[in-house]
Amino acid sequence: MKEIFDRRQRLFSGARFSTALFCSGGSANGGGASFSYFSGCAVDGSYLVLKKSGGVLLTHGMNYAEAKETCCYPVRKFGKEPAKDLKRACGRGTVGFAPGEMSAARYLALRRMAKLALANAGEKIAEVRGRKSGSEVQKISAAARITRKILDGLQPWKFRTETDLGAHLKIRALEVGCDLAFEPIVATGKNSAHPHHKTGNAKMGNFVLVDFGVKKDGYCSDFTRCYFRGNGAARERAAYGKCRKIYGEIVRALPSCKTGRDIALLGGKMLKKHGMPVLIHSIGHGIGMEVHEYPHLGFKSDEKLEGAALALEPAAYFARFGVRYERMVAHVNGKWREI
Amino acid sequence: MKEIFDRRQRLFSGARFSTALFCSGGSANGGGASFSYFSGCAVDGSYLVLKKSGGVLLTHGMNYAEAKETCCYPVRKFGKEPAKDLKRACGRGTVGFAPGEMSAARYLALRRMAKLALANAGEKIAEVRGRKSGSEVQKISAAARITRKILDGLQPWKFRTETDLGAHLKIRALEVGCDLAFEPIVATGKNSAHPHHKTGNAKMGNFVLVDFGVKKDGYCSDFTRCYFRGNGAARERAAYGKCRKIYGEIVRALPSCKTGRDIALLGGKMLKKHGMPVLIHSIGHGIGMEVHEYPHLGFKSDEKLEGAALALEPAAYFARFGVRYERMVAHVNGKWREI
Repeated sequence: MKEIFDRRQRLFSGARFSTALFCSGGSANGGGASFSYFSGCAVDGSYLVLKKSGGVLLTHGMNYAEAKETCCYPVRKFGKEPAKDLKRACGRGTVGFAPGEMSAARYLALRRMAKLALANAGEKIAEVRGRKSGSEVQKISAAARITRKILDGLQPWKFRTETDLGAHLKIRALEVGCDLAFEPIVATGKNSAHPHHKTGNAKMGNFVLVDFGVKKDGYCSDFTRCYFRGNGAARERAAYGKCRKIYGEIVRALPSCKTGRDIALLGGKMLKKHGMPVLIHSIGHGIGMEVHEYPHLGFKSDEKLEGAALALEPAAYFARFGVRYERMVAHVNGKWREI
Repeated sequence: MKEIFDRRQRLFSGARFSTALFCSGGSANGGGASFSYFSGCAVDGSYLVLKKSGGVLLTHGMNYAEAKETCCYPVRKFGKEPAKDLKRACGRGTVGFAPGEMSAARYLALRRMAKLALANAGEKIAEVRGRKSGSEVQKISAAARITRKILDGLQPWKFRTETDLGAHLKIRALEVGCDLAFEPIVATGKNSAHPHHKTGNAKMGNFVLVDFGVKKDGYCSDFTRCYFRGNGAARERAAYGKCRKIYGEIVRALPSCKTGRDIALLGGKMLKKHGMPVLIHSIGHGIGMEVHEYPHLGFKSDEKLEGAALALEPAAYFARFGVRYERMVAHVNGKWREI
């Protein structure tokens, strides 16, 4: 409860909006991470309206009882004109919202029907969420630990195809009481050349890249490892060894970084030093309730690293294969540590 | 290939837009169903631009090779100014899009950066997707068959809590090579009074409601059954029996229905006839690549039933429990059949 209210305090500190509006996802999707972050609950089809001094959750009759049981804020049922109820709860001032977590359909309806003065508060919201509390780091670490354990015990050559191995990973996640942080990527042979390869029916060769993470108590993890069978795949093995080395060098140099840009530059430098090609994706990303969140580790990013949880993923892609090594770190009490 | 092009024909027949724009989801979410429906592929971070006469897929370097291998349309790589590339591909006229499948962030960026004349084509797109082809009905039927088999074999009392039973259902789906159509709802005892109950750590009582569906080859299924232990839960059992009866009566009367409204009215009449309370959700919904899609079965819906696949779910919610019975039907060659 205190932590939830503290999040609200941080949201309004120096904010340019007097109200913040969050919507939860529908039953069919996992959206609404900020809604859960600021409300402490995960009720479908609801709105959370926050002010500096407090907040209220508005929902339909179908979800009312559940909302009352789980939300940190008072819960109000929508009447016959939900748009008017929303307008009344939001008041007159600017209403900050996260455009990345609302569909264009809802955005257009809110503007037209509730006549809200919506303003993009995505950056501010992301920044608040990007700075993790101790209890959040614990949850992220727990998800990371479970993922590492599953990957440690993985025997890729027991499976015939990428799909079989992918299904096994998903089942393992569920067996240990977790959900998936994202659809696992299993890429054997030349499929590994595509960073976002869709796991398919390719037969397992003597080299496979596995990108996998579980979600535990609402928090994500994200790891990538490459596996080799026998003594084959010498080039892949050598490139993977370099990625692991580069990862270690980046982690050791993290204390010198203050922004996402600093890590992007650092990663680029280390890859170059080891003769690796320029990376076609970023060197890593913030992670938390969503698998990709603040801070962005791009060459133009001035997003802050204070209190960040990161997945770092040095990688190299060639015509016939790709390799990637991904692990997680967190910035706790001014120090980086691997999780 | 022919089917994909036929979908484009139907989209532009009588359309008020000269271009249609679809975006695929990110790696972390399952969005972009219409993108897959009209492109025949599922590549991350891409745009599909359709005209009456053809189309093009635009994507970033990272996904280019994969897109070329899987998309039915020519693939172009974004240059240094993706917004300009998009603008060029879309041309001058009105650009129809599906607001429910695009984030507000992307919508705002497209308007500001690419200066597209975006127009809500959500209804038209939903209508095209709502009319299923023979091969789509086959896929939906396959997903339905697998779900029924899992539910037929379910022994709910082997599990201690809702969460345990939910995890088992998810694992079963993966074991048979499917994904989940949605997060299963497992609600025991009084939790069943909430239609969208979040499966939790409640211990299994002598009555449990299970709402579950797998996704197979991109198509969803959706079934709800109630299970009873021993001779207890007499009221729940009686109410569930009525829901099953009402379901049967609705199915028999479907030939008289032409729109979503007709089914909503029919459902309301049948529930009333059996002394059931007014339903707090709709009597069912269209189903396909998404678990909830066209047609909407609401009292104001004039959406058509021609070629529809539906999940029908008569239900009753009381203070201390709720019951629901859900099965699927498809309208094939002018006739309704259960799937």
